[in-house]
Amino acid sequence: MIDEKWLSDNDPVCSNRRGFLRGVAAVTAGGALGVSIPLQGADIVAGASAQEAATPLPEYVKWKNPDSMIVHSDQTLETRRAYTGSVITPEEQLYVRNNIKAPDDSFIADRDGWKLEITGVKSPTVLSVAELKTMGLTTVAMVLQCSGNGRAYFQEKLKGTDKAIKGTSWALGAAGCVAWTGVPLKTVIEAVGGASPGAKFITGTGGEKIPAGLNPKDIIVERSVPISNLDTVLLAWELNGKPISLAHGGPLRMIVPGYAGVNNVKYVAKLSLTDTETDAKIQKTRYRVHDMGTEGSADVPSVWAMDVKSWVTSPLSDGKAGRVTVAGVAFGGMNAVQEVEISTDGGKNWHKADFVGPDLGRFAWRQFALSTELEPGSYTLVSRATDATGKTQPEEPELNAGGYSHNGWLAPGVKISLA
Amino acid sequence: MIDEKWLSDNDPVCSNRRGFLRGVAAVTAGGALGVSIPLQGADIVAGASAQEAATPLPEYVKWKNPDSMIVHSDQTLETRRAYTGSVITPEEQLYVRNNIKAPDDSFIADRDGWKLEITGVKSPTVLSVAELKTMGLTTVAMVLQCSGNGRAYFQEKLKGTDKAIKGTSWALGAAGCVAWTGVPLKTVIEAVGGASPGAKFITGTGGEKIPAGLNPKDIIVERSVPISNLDTVLLAWELNGKPISLAHGGPLRMIVPGYAGVNNVKYVAKLSLTDTETDAKIQKTRYRVHDMGTEGSADVPSVWAMDVKSWVTSPLSDGKAGRVTVAGVAFGGMNAVQEVEISTDGGKNWHKADFVGPDLGRFAWRQFALSTELEPGSYTLVSRATDATGKTQPEEPELNAGGYSHNGWLAPGVKISLA
Repeated sequence: MIDEKWLSDNDPVCSNRRGFLRGVAAVTAGGALGVSIPLQGADIVAGASAQEAATPLPEYVKWKNPDSMIVHSDQTLETRRAYTGSVITPEEQLYVRNNIKAPDDSFIADRDGWKLEITGVKSPTVLSVAELKTMGLTTVAMVLQCSGNGRAYFQEKLKGTDKAIKGTSWALGAAGCVAWTGVPLKTVIEAVGGASPGAKFITGTGGEKIPAGLNPKDIIVERSVPISNLDTVLLAWELNGKPISLAHGGPLRMIVPGYAGVNNVKYVAKLSLTDTETDAKIQKTRYRVHDMGTEGSADVPSVWAMDVKSWVTSPLSDGKAGRVTVAGVAFGGMNAVQEVEISTDGGKNWHKADFVGPDLGRFAWRQFALSTELEPGSYTLVSRATDATGKTQPEEPELNAGGYSHNGWLAPGVKISLA
Repeated sequence: MIDEKWLSDNDPVCSNRRGFLRGVAAVTAGGALGVSIPLQGADIVAGASAQEAATPLPEYVKWKNPDSMIVHSDQTLETRRAYTGSVITPEEQLYVRNNIKAPDDSFIADRDGWKLEITGVKSPTVLSVAELKTMGLTTVAMVLQCSGNGRAYFQEKLKGTDKAIKGTSWALGAAGCVAWTGVPLKTVIEAVGGASPGAKFITGTGGEKIPAGLNPKDIIVERSVPISNLDTVLLAWELNGKPISLAHGGPLRMIVPGYAGVNNVKYVAKLSLTDTETDAKIQKTRYRVHDMGTEGSADVPSVWAMDVKSWVTSPLSDGKAGRVTVAGVAFGGMNAVQEVEISTDGGKNWHKADFVGPDLGRFAWRQFALSTELEPGSYTLVSRATDATGKTQPEEPELNAGGYSHNGWLAPGVKISLA
């Protein structure tokens, strides 16, 4: 009766609550099998077993570079670690995570004709993308990262215990740094008379069709973020200089710079300034940070602003002793990243790395590098970033039931040998 | 006997000197026919006649987006104006201009194994790309622009006179802003003991095979730039986060930020610090700025650092009166761009535009935009940029025999009607 492919097959809370859907448990278990040792060399990243590597790309993302992707499922594709080091992530290497099965091509058949309903403002209205394009233009470079990026490290930690975290075993590659082009939401809101009195949240609603027989509130992708983001939110039609692909939310996506992926609503069809957060399940109980053994609720924090984070992207495999350049990427969520340290001995000794390449603004990641002489031997390469507010990545983050927001520096270490 | 496809078929000096090569004159004339009125609406840019638009992509660049490219010839492909507005130009939309027919795929079969000979230093040596990768890492975002970009406007100006400029009729799209990743040349030079005494130039040599029977000096792509660029030159293996394609100079390219395209030597096989400029024809007489009716020589300026320039990228076609956002890109060559003004009446009245989007550094272009209310009527949209040293684009640049370095603001104007 219900096509379960409409639903994400490996969201942790989703799979807890929707255990009645055929296949969910099996797929979740399959994902977990892909986790390997967090301290790994080469690009055998957690979640990237040989079996997964061989999974072909789903049809709607056939244009991705297959070498760069780990296919966890049709709706969850991770970027291989070796492909996460560039200042801008090419779209064909960008991770994919859809809460609902991606819509068909009819969504992008007439991009300029796509309609956005705007409410919670003085003069509620409906604007086409063509109209939005006349109103203003800007570009924001920012890290797009799935809330569950790093979950594999939490799962690894729980191996052999009686606890487990369900959900896609993302290691590091459910993240990329991309440039979105569109109109500032603030400009649009001003053009429609400003916010209604009392508005506290920006609520975006995805335009995906909800299958009959399901409670829309359980399925709909509708997210609210604090209205304090009004100065930075974007209604975007381009990703890295091209019309946004269907897989990444084209023709129109709500972009909330500095916020975790789920808040950046794809196929955005409705934008409301609201007094309260939406009561859609994806906001009310899912994507909440709460203790193991408890349920998500409005009383615990939503997965909103991202934490400071970094990882090494090169080298990832054994090589020659001598001069070695250790490089990676670092970001601070809402804040610029201020400093990155690198250790080659798993965190005993630290050395300040240089930022290299362009600074694309506080929401983007920065590349860092440190060139050093290394004797033959074994090394564990780790990086540790500090943001502009002084927050530093923890060695290990606290466990949470959904396995969200992992930003520890120890687990993503890279073990290599130099001869 | 000689395969003329080895040679560029529409370089102005090249076609003067090599008139004996079958087909050259015909192709050059064909290019010139494609020039339309410089003040144009829509994306009917100069050089983009319907006939050219229909030319299929050559095999080695089949992966380009055909909608975004004007195929002037197998070795000269221009980006359509509407596709030049993003902060980073996607590689599949980037213009192509090869002086010599692009090599075959054997050049990129073993990227890390590609060898670079380094001379003019204390310890001359040969380094592989794999070795270069251990030495350091950085990324530079910069405008890559063909020396002849804008030549169509010079050619248009000479219509109906007894003068003519040969060569590809590039309008605005022989330019893009891209991110190169590689090792700073300075780091490499330091590792091999530093420059030989008296070195005044950085000379890069392309690795293309020279067909038997031709004088290598006439054909070889070997360019010298002042050694003052040592702090910014890069030996790059990545373009926009991916290994550099064959069409764009992979596996290794010498990148000279702020300098015109020809100086960025593709397939770089030799890097020398030299006392004098190379006497290869591409340096000695070609790519020189000299008066109509004179020959290129070492006594006139080489096409090196680029001039301040800008153009409107949107709107390019007729539309509705009311709110309109005029947007474009602007750059300053070696200097950051400081200000951009926009006129909607062909330069009678000017209004300051806002820079929007990330600032990728002084060698990159910046996006600008100005939202305004326009009544029904006809408009001529032009932009005029000023760089950090105070240099402003001229209304019309001086003619030169090669049609190089056009940076006038008048000719690229966009005529539109709003109803």
